[in-house]
Amino acid sequence: MMPVITAIRALDIRFPTSEHLDGSDAMNPDPDYSAAYCVIETSDGPSGHGMTFTIGRGNDLCVAAIQQLGELLIGFELDNLRPSMGPLWKRLTGDSQLRWLGPEKGVVHLAAAAVMNALWDLLAKREGMPVWRLLAAMPAEELYNLVDWTYLSDVVTRDEIMAHLASTQDTASQRITELEAHGYPAYTTSAGWLGYSDDKMRALLQEAVDAGWTTFKMKVGRDLEDDKRRARLIREYIGDSGQLMMDANQVWGVNTAIAWMRELAEFRPGWIEEPTSPDDILGHAKIAKALAPIPVATGEHCHNAVMFKQFMEAGGLSICQLDSCRLASVNEIIGVLILAWKFQIPVCPHAGGVGLCEYVQHISMFDYVRVSCQTEGRVIEYVDHLHEHFKDPVRLVHGRYATPTAPGYSIEMHAETLRQYAYPHGEVWASRVH
Amino acid sequence: MMPVITAIRALDIRFPTSEHLDGSDAMNPDPDYSAAYCVIETSDGPSGHGMTFTIGRGNDLCVAAIQQLGELLIGFELDNLRPSMGPLWKRLTGDSQLRWLGPEKGVVHLAAAAVMNALWDLLAKREGMPVWRLLAAMPAEELYNLVDWTYLSDVVTRDEIMAHLASTQDTASQRITELEAHGYPAYTTSAGWLGYSDDKMRALLQEAVDAGWTTFKMKVGRDLEDDKRRARLIREYIGDSGQLMMDANQVWGVNTAIAWMRELAEFRPGWIEEPTSPDDILGHAKIAKALAPIPVATGEHCHNAVMFKQFMEAGGLSICQLDSCRLASVNEIIGVLILAWKFQIPVCPHAGGVGLCEYVQHISMFDYVRVSCQTEGRVIEYVDHLHEHFKDPVRLVHGRYATPTAPGYSIEMHAETLRQYAYPHGEVWASRVH
Repeated sequence: MMPVITAIRALDIRFPTSEHLDGSDAMNPDPDYSAAYCVIETSDGPSGHGMTFTIGRGNDLCVAAIQQLGELLIGFELDNLRPSMGPLWKRLTGDSQLRWLGPEKGVVHLAAAAVMNALWDLLAKREGMPVWRLLAAMPAEELYNLVDWTYLSDVVTRDEIMAHLASTQDTASQRITELEAHGYPAYTTSAGWLGYSDDKMRALLQEAVDAGWTTFKMKVGRDLEDDKRRARLIREYIGDSGQLMMDANQVWGVNTAIAWMRELAEFRPGWIEEPTSPDDILGHAKIAKALAPIPVATGEHCHNAVMFKQFMEAGGLSICQLDSCRLASVNEIIGVLILAWKFQIPVCPHAGGVGLCEYVQHISMFDYVRVSCQTEGRVIEYVDHLHEHFKDPVRLVHGRYATPTAPGYSIEMHAETLRQYAYPHGEVWASRVH
Repeated sequence: MMPVITAIRALDIRFPTSEHLDGSDAMNPDPDYSAAYCVIETSDGPSGHGMTFTIGRGNDLCVAAIQQLGELLIGFELDNLRPSMGPLWKRLTGDSQLRWLGPEKGVVHLAAAAVMNALWDLLAKREGMPVWRLLAAMPAEELYNLVDWTYLSDVVTRDEIMAHLASTQDTASQRITELEAHGYPAYTTSAGWLGYSDDKMRALLQEAVDAGWTTFKMKVGRDLEDDKRRARLIREYIGDSGQLMMDANQVWGVNTAIAWMRELAEFRPGWIEEPTSPDDILGHAKIAKALAPIPVATGEHCHNAVMFKQFMEAGGLSICQLDSCRLASVNEIIGVLILAWKFQIPVCPHAGGVGLCEYVQHISMFDYVRVSCQTEGRVIEYVDHLHEHFKDPVRLVHGRYATPTAPGYSIEMHAETLRQYAYPHGEVWASRVH
């Protein structure tokens, strides 16, 4: 009997982070970091775990969509999994009726991300490798065929992609060795949330500087004078040599973004992140032009590769902050990494959430080994909470991500977590929800 | 006691249209036209009815989202409804946690459309007017305040909008009189679906020509030779003077779209609709430039006003086909109508679905009376099925939409329809679903 997929379990897992204002910013005052979590059960061997990230209400909509999409996989024969990863992506994102609800955006695309993430976890476990190592070893053609190029091929050709991926395969082992020795650079948002008091910020900053961090991010956009005061406070701790990123979480229109950031330019921001609507490619391009040389960063709400293609073409972003749970998993992310290589734009993935650090370490390490082949100007976001819920959590060493070594995609949560934080009936919630 | 909103009922209504290949195109081979339907119950006076349109699977996700969003309205005092239409839009689209699932796109935005559509129906019924007449009579400032301009104000100023809307209010009555006398021009897709046989097409074409239609639309993109044969067949019936629109429903990449349409140019298409990904603003601009003077039309999948703003700025569309159920109702649509006025782009709303004809007649008539003040180059799509399910269906007179006169937004379905077509337990479905 060939092993098959036997069942999909979709779980609504939420953490009551709003109670401590972790993750608070100008647009998201009270997020409850949540996972719409997908378990792919099999008749033999490991199960696959995957998730998409939300901030609370509506997590149930993603869970319902995961259950629907997952049904398409029941009975799938696992010996065919590896060569089917490209076609399965098309199947999951291309259902002719569900496609109307996007296409390739919103709840259905978030759910497709969770299911594909679980398939990648399953495949990597079956191959006995962490996802980044599995991808790093793939021949050029296998990588190419993972991506749907239909809407991307006007800016990059098959020939140039194949030539590049073949050349990087030849030199992959030296970069793998280097990553294993030194890890991948990171930055931290832990001290910069809007909801924290000055005292809490000072304590967290001292702790972070002591731990070796040199790159920091603060939330801006609620009150200009308050932003100035907090920027000054952070500069006190990190000095002139530290990097200070700023994040507006979409609160501004185009003209306001330009005016506000001119006021904050004196604090030498390393970038301004999400200055306006995440859909406004041309608006970002106007902002980037007006604020140059301050780089404009965006991507955590950029819903698909077609949008990234245009952001890059239009000069709307200088830093690509793709999200591992908003893009429909590794397949689509590889497309975006290749576009970023083509346009020579650094990828610094979004990871302010639960599970996102665990995911994006694989993405950035693969990017270094096979696509951009650089770490210069690239950092992975790091947020220091909720890692205790994962079986194979990220490990940070002196402000750098250590290479993950366990087979899979590092996202499997402890069974105890899946029980306690289940919404609304797990014990953590049963006492809170009325 | 002030009348209040007492309950929200969200209903999953589906029509088994896939059984007859109505609505079949290159991307959507077997749609079941569906409504995620919302009833707003009140303690006194009429209830409000609204819907968003889907093509089957996933309608339940919209229904669940409608129920969640609708809860925000329970207890709302109806005497405050009219001045609250702007703030309520912000409340329904701006929930800080649900916003993560978009923002302003996908399932949650479709649900916001359904709820806001029901609120507009409720308001118009309470005011005793059809929606288009209610809007047509509004002072400039009231119209302006319905729209969230945060992400739109970089291309159009408050002053120019207010001046224009004030001037059109002064001259509105003459255009209202004209609409009441002559109706609004329309075109038909009824004969052009991909799934129909030549015999069925011939019969439908003869019928349509006899009924006075002069503008037709055909689906293209599955097979080039087949497209040519069908275009030739339609030209046989409509001659040189008839207009032939073509619709690719997103099947092509940018380069394919250009090559394919060069082959079909000999049939003198009135426009090419949805040539590629609906998110690809810059791709549409490339196509429009390469195919000029053939106009490029898009919009039925354009998910919000920020996207339309850029399509217009970039020259990515020559015809704006906004969708009354994908944009979050009248508020957002007014924003897009004003952008279209600013960029001098005709609006020809999408209406290939169930309920869409009923909705967009109000939009186009309001556009004529207060925004564009023109019908030149503007036509409303018309599809001749499923109208029997509505209490106040559209009326076509010699290929033109007659003005709706009943109070409300023309979308209330018969109670019998809501019972029979309820998915999956209504009698129409009980026998079909296994």
